[in-house]
Amino acid sequence: MTFANVGTLGVKPGQRDEVVAILTRRSTDLDGAGCLSYEVGISDEHPDTVFVSELWVSADAHQASLQLASVRAAIKEAMPLLSGEMGGDRFEIVGSPLRN
Amino acid sequence: MTFANVGTLGVKPGQRDEVVAILTRRSTDLDGAGCLSYEVGISDEHPDTVFVSELWVSADAHQASLQLASVRAAIKEAMPLLSGEMGGDRFEIVGSPLRN
Repeated sequence: MTFANVGTLGVKPGQRDEVVAILTRRSTDLDGAGCLSYEVGISDEHPDTVFVSELWVSADAHQASLQLASVRAAIKEAMPLLSGEMGGDRFEIVGSPLRN
Repeated sequence: MTFANVGTLGVKPGQRDEVVAILTRRSTDLDGAGCLSYEVGISDEHPDTVFVSELWVSADAHQASLQLASVRAAIKEAMPLLSGEMGGDRFEIVGSPLRN
């Protein structure tokens, strides 16, 4: 069942754009990993936060992706730039008004 | 710029599936309204919550959609089933590791 991971990453002051650059770097690893969508966002109202909204073919695919070399490298690179504040939700997709 | 609206809707006990049914009912209104994605989800860990993750062509398109007949009808129908607890984030999409 399609799995969603949406969340927020708090970043140290002034580090948002660098974290965005790391998270949006093209990752061909993800192409075969069951990642359906991985959107990274920002909000003027929250200048020290990076937002992510991901869809995966399954929760297992998401979990397994955390072991991919490119994902591990991105996490390692971003970690020193994060404040430690994190939020978010994980859920199973059950439908959409855009589909029958 | 692509706009994301992700959020949670608290529902009264036992009403989750009904709220899911309302939110996932096929809405052809949305097809021409700039809605790129509208996923509705649930989580066993939070039985009284419905999750939504939406992408729109712009924040304005999202705002305008709230006036669509089908959307207004759905809100009216779901409202009595909601607990009043709501959460979420709105942000602008700046990139994805799935795209160059």
